[in-house]
Formats: sequence, C-alpha cells, structure tokens
Amino acid sequence: MIGRLNHVAIAVPDLAAASAQYADVLGATVGAPQDEPDHGVTVVFIELPNTKIELLYPLGDDSPIRGFLDKNPSGGIHHMCFEVEDIIAARDRLKAEGARVLGSGDPKIGAHGKPVLFLHPKDFNGTLIELEQI
Amino acid sequence: MIGRLNHVAIAVPDLAAASAQYADVLGATVGAPQDEPDHGVTVVFIELPNTKIELLYPLGDDSPIRGFLDKNPSGGIHHMCFEVEDIIAARDRLKAEGARVLGSGDPKIGAHGKPVLFLHPKDFNGTLIELEQI
Repeated sequence: MIGRLNHVAIAVPDLAAASAQYADVLGATVGAPQDEPDHGVTVVFIELPNTKIELLYPLGDDSPIRGFLDKNPSGGIHHMCFEVEDIIAARDRLKAEGARVLGSGDPKIGAHGKPVLFLHPKDFNGTLIELEQI
Repeated sequence: MIGRLNHVAIAVPDLAAASAQYADVLGATVGAPQDEPDHGVTVVFIELPNTKIELLYPLGDDSPIRGFLDKNPSGGIHHMCFEVEDIIAARDRLKAEGARVLGSGDPKIGAHGKPVLFLHPKDFNGTLIELEQI
C-alpha cells in the first residue's frame, strides 16, 4: 500500500539558521521559506536526490508545531510522509485494521496541494505518519 | 555534500509486531530480522521504492537503543542516515564548521558494511544524523 517516502519533516526552533546549516554545512539544495497559513507552519524544502526534508516552523498562534517545540526546544523529527495512490482506500484499510486516523478522518489538502491524512503515533511505534495521495 | 537519504531508523518496543504492521497494515516489503551484535541491535529493513525504513530493537545489555526505549516506551524515530561519497572529507568539513561528531570521530563499520559516523543531535535541530559512505 505505502509507496515512496515523500518527506521527513523536522520541527526547528530557528528556520533561517536550520536552512543555512543544511545549505552551508551539509551542502544540500535548500528552497525558500513558504508560509502555509492553513497548516500553521512555514516550511522550507530540502531536495535530496531521492526524497525531501521538510523544515517546519510555527506560523500563527494555533500552530500544531508550537507544542512540539515547547516539549523539544532544540527541535526534532516531527513526522514522516508516505505516498499512497488512493487515500480513501488507504484510510478504510487502516481503520479496518484498528489504526486511528487523526481529526475527522476526512483528508485535508496538504502543503503540496494533495490530499493528506495523519495516523495516530501511538498506533505506529511512536511515529507520526502522514499519508499523501499522489 | 549529503546525497540520498539512505534510511530512517525507528526504535520499536516489539520487533515482530512492528514488522507485521508494516507488512500487513501498511502493505510494505519487510525483510527478516538481522542481529547486529557489534551495534547492539536487531534490525528489520523495510524496502520502499526510494529509500528504506530500518526498525531497531535492542540486542544485548549494552544496546544504544535501550535508553531511547526507556524514555520512549512506544518507540519513535531514532535517526536518519544521509549518504556521503567521502566520509573523512565530510567529517573534516563538519568539524571545521563546529559540528560535533559522536564517539572517537573515526568511522565505524555500520549495519550495511559501510563506514558510518553519527553527528550530535544538539547541533542539528534535535535530530540524530548518521552519515554513511557509499
């Protein structure tokens, strides 16, 4: 069911410093910051040859990243995203297996303009998993 | 400098259950457990089309994963691994930029039989980064 690893998302306490570090110290290809007000984050994409790293920084007062950074002031890996061909079929299969889908269970449009869902980390080894339909 | 994302490593409290979940619930291609006594872990590789997930479970009393699971009983993302062409050149560049390399600073032979180093998570947004020479 799951396909490619679309990205690994890292919450960071200083987006400019983290971007500069990936560009200058790790020598990666780093994009410009993009505000995603619908998701409460500013994101920076780092293009690797086979996948992406997504740096996340809170945007607005209700950002879902804020609590994570309060608990992890240095930052940390926030989630990983797998691609699926049919997000409704994937959701229904996961729910039938007893996995919990976060929120209403209806896909939202994610930062890449594609439908996404998040799975409960307690059901997946403490790992927050995003599914994105491609 | 960094190339492909070689793998994302997830420490899990029950290797058989996590393997079955990735195979049966997430529909991924899951390998057989491999003991890596030199690294104090048993690993299961999950092959995605573009990268790998590495499930980690403690092996032996001195496993470096044991403390992580004590702090995170449900498991969690433990590290991510970037490929580099020349690990000594990468190490020297990182040290010159002020990043801390864990341990002696000399590469060890990793689970894939290639030289590896780990970078201090406090220097990289709370993320433990492994570099592997390919």
